[in-house]
Amino acid sequence: MKVIADLTIIPIGVGVSLSRYIAACEAVLDRPGLETSLHPNGTNIEGEWDLVFRAIRECHEKIHAMGAPRIHTNIKLGTRVDREQTMEDKVASVRGRLQGG
Amino acid sequence: MKVIADLTIIPIGVGVSLSRYIAACEAVLDRPGLETSLHPNGTNIEGEWDLVFRAIRECHEKIHAMGAPRIHTNIKLGTRVDREQTMEDKVASVRGRLQGG
Amino acid sequence: MKVIADLTIIPIGVGVSLSRYIAACEAVLDRPGLETSLHPNGTNIEGEWDLVFRAIRECHEKIHAMGAPRIHTNIKLGTRVDREQTMEDKVASVRGRLQGG
Amino acid sequence: MKVIADLTIIPIGVGVSLSRYIAACEAVLDRPGLETSLHPNGTNIEGEWDLVFRAIRECHEKIHAMGAPRIHTNIKLGTRVDREQTMEDKVASVRGRLQGG
Repeated sequence: MKVIADLTIIPIGVGVSLSRYIAACEAVLDRPGLETSLHPNGTNIEGEWDLVFRAIRECHEKIHAMGAPRIHTNIKLGTRVDREQTMEDKVASVRGRLQGG
Repeated sequence: MKVIADLTIIPIGVGVSLSRYIAACEAVLDRPGLETSLHPNGTNIEGEWDLVFRAIRECHEKIHAMGAPRIHTNIKLGTRVDREQTMEDKVASVRGRLQGG
Repeated sequence: MKVIADLTIIPIGVGVSLSRYIAACEAVLDRPGLETSLHPNGTNIEGEWDLVFRAIRECHEKIHAMGAPRIHTNIKLGTRVDREQTMEDKVASVRGRLQGG
Repeated sequence: MKVIADLTIIPIGVGVSLSRYIAACEAVLDRPGLETSLHPNGTNIEGEWDLVFRAIRECHEKIHAMGAPRIHTNIKLGTRVDREQTMEDKVASVRGRLQGG
């Protein structure tokens, strides 16, 4: 089952600057089978369910190993069985409506 | 790695009443190793990471099998490595602050 | 427009224990026109849209005033125009399906 | 108080294709004082708190007026008082870590 997800990871107890933890997670997500796209409030991820959630688990393990005692994460995700759809399709579908007026 | 999560599942394309799909997911989550608690905007789940996410995947599979072509899900989750903490501990910790003024 | 929401507030840069900040937000939310219910991953809130979001803004202001330099918040919310529904109705609707199942 | 938010709106009870509702919300968000950026799982929004939440309320009103009886929305948001930060700054901060790696 394919999933299109949006991942936001907030390490807790490591001060106010979180970018080095987010970058470490980006490095974990950069693997065959996953397509990712960083945005200002998270990272969009496209891939097979098990690959996506194994990678998210490894992000948690990595960030704890870097010293974060606690992590809060938010995942939005969608699955569909009626048709194939990529991340680009989703954005193009809305943009087409906007241009079509 | 233990996780405390909050799951909200929104079947799309099956009309406006979603309770029978949510109830089916509750039945899927009712298994050894998971503690769950239904609330007005989701279901809190406590358990080992792999058990939690396998059950959430089975909720998606179940709800698609019931006829939902598309599902949107939101998962909030926390992990911590500094100490053990249950769902009850989290609520008690805030309540203690409120009573302590 | 009435809203049923679920609020999770994560102060960033104040260490690993967040309960005193969450308790301060609970105190802010305890006002006429809002019904609230604390759970392990957030607080459910029921009330008129403007009252709900004004109170959430005041939570942010309060927690910043307590010393948190940065806050991450997640809000899930639902509105509906087809019929009246309370937080209790939502839980009862799923529970009814489980028992009837 | 400035906020950087990520908005996901799911109209319920209008079938499986949601793009025309999302496009209508994009049109509502396109106003002075807000910077927005559509992505595969939502729309990032930067602006003053009251402007952002007034626009989100108007999205709900618009989508209900288009015929959706029920809406589920997820909002992730951040505020900070230690320094100014734009949406571009957030992405650049993580990208800098990755390249510096």
